[in-house]
Amino acid sequence: MMKIVIYPGSFDPITNGHIDLIARGAGLFDKVIVAITQNSSKTAFIHLDDRLALICDALKKFSNVEVKTFNTLLVDFAKKEQARIIIRGLRAVSDFEYEFQLSGMNKKLDANIETLFMTPDEQYSNLSSSLIREIALLGGDISNFVPYNVYQHILKHLKK
Amino acid sequence: MMKIVIYPGSFDPITNGHIDLIARGAGLFDKVIVAITQNSSKTAFIHLDDRLALICDALKKFSNVEVKTFNTLLVDFAKKEQARIIIRGLRAVSDFEYEFQLSGMNKKLDANIETLFMTPDEQYSNLSSSLIREIALLGGDISNFVPYNVYQHILKHLKK
Amino acid sequence: MMKIVIYPGSFDPITNGHIDLIARGAGLFDKVIVAITQNSSKTAFIHLDDRLALICDALKKFSNVEVKTFNTLLVDFAKKEQARIIIRGLRAVSDFEYEFQLSGMNKKLDANIETLFMTPDEQYSNLSSSLIREIALLGGDISNFVPYNVYQHILKHLKK
Amino acid sequence: MMKIVIYPGSFDPITNGHIDLIARGAGLFDKVIVAITQNSSKTAFIHLDDRLALICDALKKFSNVEVKTFNTLLVDFAKKEQARIIIRGLRAVSDFEYEFQLSGMNKKLDANIETLFMTPDEQYSNLSSSLIREIALLGGDISNFVPYNVYQHILKHLKK
Amino acid sequence: MMKIVIYPGSFDPITNGHIDLIARGAGLFDKVIVAITQNSSKTAFIHLDDRLALICDALKKFSNVEVKTFNTLLVDFAKKEQARIIIRGLRAVSDFEYEFQLSGMNKKLDANIETLFMTPDEQYSNLSSSLIREIALLGGDISNFVPYNVYQHILKHLKK
Amino acid sequence: MMKIVIYPGSFDPITNGHIDLIARGAGLFDKVIVAITQNSSKTAFIHLDDRLALICDALKKFSNVEVKTFNTLLVDFAKKEQARIIIRGLRAVSDFEYEFQLSGMNKKLDANIETLFMTPDEQYSNLSSSLIREIALLGGDISNFVPYNVYQHILKHLKK
Repeated sequence: MMKIVIYPGSFDPITNGHIDLIARGAGLFDKVIVAITQNSSKTAFIHLDDRLALICDALKKFSNVEVKTFNTLLVDFAKKEQARIIIRGLRAVSDFEYEFQLSGMNKKLDANIETLFMTPDEQYSNLSSSLIREIALLGGDISNFVPYNVYQHILKHLKK
Repeated sequence: MMKIVIYPGSFDPITNGHIDLIARGAGLFDKVIVAITQNSSKTAFIHLDDRLALICDALKKFSNVEVKTFNTLLVDFAKKEQARIIIRGLRAVSDFEYEFQLSGMNKKLDANIETLFMTPDEQYSNLSSSLIREIALLGGDISNFVPYNVYQHILKHLKK
Repeated sequence: MMKIVIYPGSFDPITNGHIDLIARGAGLFDKVIVAITQNSSKTAFIHLDDRLALICDALKKFSNVEVKTFNTLLVDFAKKEQARIIIRGLRAVSDFEYEFQLSGMNKKLDANIETLFMTPDEQYSNLSSSLIREIALLGGDISNFVPYNVYQHILKHLKK
Repeated sequence: MMKIVIYPGSFDPITNGHIDLIARGAGLFDKVIVAITQNSSKTAFIHLDDRLALICDALKKFSNVEVKTFNTLLVDFAKKEQARIIIRGLRAVSDFEYEFQLSGMNKKLDANIETLFMTPDEQYSNLSSSLIREIALLGGDISNFVPYNVYQHILKHLKK
Repeated sequence: MMKIVIYPGSFDPITNGHIDLIARGAGLFDKVIVAITQNSSKTAFIHLDDRLALICDALKKFSNVEVKTFNTLLVDFAKKEQARIIIRGLRAVSDFEYEFQLSGMNKKLDANIETLFMTPDEQYSNLSSSLIREIALLGGDISNFVPYNVYQHILKHLKK
Repeated sequence: MMKIVIYPGSFDPITNGHIDLIARGAGLFDKVIVAITQNSSKTAFIHLDDRLALICDALKKFSNVEVKTFNTLLVDFAKKEQARIIIRGLRAVSDFEYEFQLSGMNKKLDANIETLFMTPDEQYSNLSSSLIREIALLGGDISNFVPYNVYQHILKHLKK
């Protein structure tokens, strides 16, 4: 049976740490679906449509990775995509607790869905989308933290 | 001397985990006062008046449980109710740290007030009001996580 | 109904933080039973008999505190003493996790037993019996950390 | 390509939480190898040979689960078994930190090995082999925490 | 070489815990620059100009402490001030994780900048600016938690 | 005034992460004293005399670093060396809690001693002496984790 995994997140912006995790997931499973969610409670830093286009572009070298957006429950999206596995990155203890709650709730909502956690490569362990947004807004150089096309997009839009 | 305890929270919505903790508190102490606070910095998911009514209804089987709202300092409310004990649920490390700060500050504000922490029954350890709100807003089934009357209220209001 | 609580520990040695917690427990409940366990996997720093005598002496001013030793399951000891409540101090996250497991297991062993957690007064938040043992063994002054009779006992025995 | 995963541990004793995790792993991957390590720094509670026999017996209903012992580096064992994935259960923050270090070191030792973390089902979240050993040694009933054959083995050997 | 350290924060309001840490830093290093940042994403409790004036006044007894505001990247501000050391207080695990990420990112942005962490004196371990704001808004007495001039300023402005 | 700092530890063995932290400390302070303690409760992996010689050798390129052993209270050793600052590395939450207790106790023992915490460079964040010992004992390659002379010493002694 084909092992399809979902890697959900807001990816606002996608970081080199996310890319590393996707690459590793793509090496372990048959298909990785990167599932972009727009957090409705927050204003997007990069517009959802742009994010989709940028992430597709940044990941085009991976033949078994797809990028999609979704606005339903994660477990419903997973079922629709015939995926039984959700993968999530764990950087820190606070991640871990929220992720625990989430995976516990998801399992209550659909007992067939499993969440598997991966840890980031050490060099990415401090990267977070929110810190990158802060640095970019203060004019710091984020070119080492995100893919090149994402860097250019942010640079262009902040200059306006 | 009668042991009166306060169980404060925003309960937006009240969960089956809260109910379990109230039931256990009601078995240990003479009176449990469920004290609803409206977090002024957040928009309520369920209106405060409705929350009060729903929680009263959900807890009516407990003869030694009262439900009240308050908008003062917790220690002042406790004193007014002649309660010396605050009970709080601890699910996770992050809860724990915030609760530590809060209980430390409350003790500085009124040295007579003690905070006692209880842990949730395992089956409720991943329940949180904020996750339940998210699931409800995305159309997920929350009927296993909250009392039936709360479930019906949320369903009716989300459909509008 | 009388509220009897058990406060278990190895108390090797008892610290001023333990005493503070016992004092507060004695103010909240009808009877506090300080229950000394000898951790069989470790060599005692103070012999169990001496510990019992020293702790009794240090706590004699509290009329509703009893000191006992036990070598059974904690839930069995609690039942024998007609206590339904165990109190435990929580200083830190690592305490918290072990205590969570323990209280969860105790509840599985006897669903009638509840564990209530208290936090230490800030001035005692860094005290631990193991650090005090280390300091004493290196000749440091522990007189501010333990009751006076315990301090004298340790001093006398280390000098030998 | 066949997905073979290693699930390492000392399993002294194996718990129902371990069994649950193995069952879920067996549903997600093509083969699960339960890899028993004898921690040389500790005396075994159940002899390694007995552990192997008991665990084999407890897991015989799973057609794609194998049980082996190993006394080499985990990454070397994984390579020998042609497994690229290690699965580990995460119950708590302290688990998480040790596991992070371990998975980081394993990745330095062999960059091809990935560690995937799973969370226990809530009902098993407080189970730990060390607590079960403590309870058993104090005469407590561990029949709800371990497979039946393991329970009988422990009971028989403690009575001696 | 002169050891100049930056102590950044929003200090909204500055607490006695902050003052204690500044005093200790001023005893260890040649110059401490208290660097106030206005968190653009939040409404200020005390206006930035008032905060600067109040903090200057509260710290005027320290001859080697300067107070400044900044709205650039912290590492750029540090470089401009010829400071190679950032000091930060660590109260709790959640502090610790965010601070880790931040110091890791700052080091990537400028490898010459080091972050040194100090722990608060125990009596200040539960103080936080956000809790103090909450208490003040509910009419609680915050005079023991902040310098006297800050207390008076808050009192005056809340009464309006 | 000269800024002398103590960096205490058992360094059994010293790792590249320790070396990195010492290098950074040597760049920030006038003198760093690496203070080796023999944990009396544990058998040494590398004999204390050998450890002292190996660490001296590994650090000889740093002109302002000294290496000493001590078997007294850390605060007494610091006072003797006219050091007012202890530096410690923080890798993880569990480190952090133990270190908090220790620094709190040290401050009670001598109010003039401050503890400053540094975080490891990311590439060293998973290194720990105990994991390195485990890997070496199982025949794993530790040459990337410790200085070359330490690696050779361990290799030679394990082969015996």
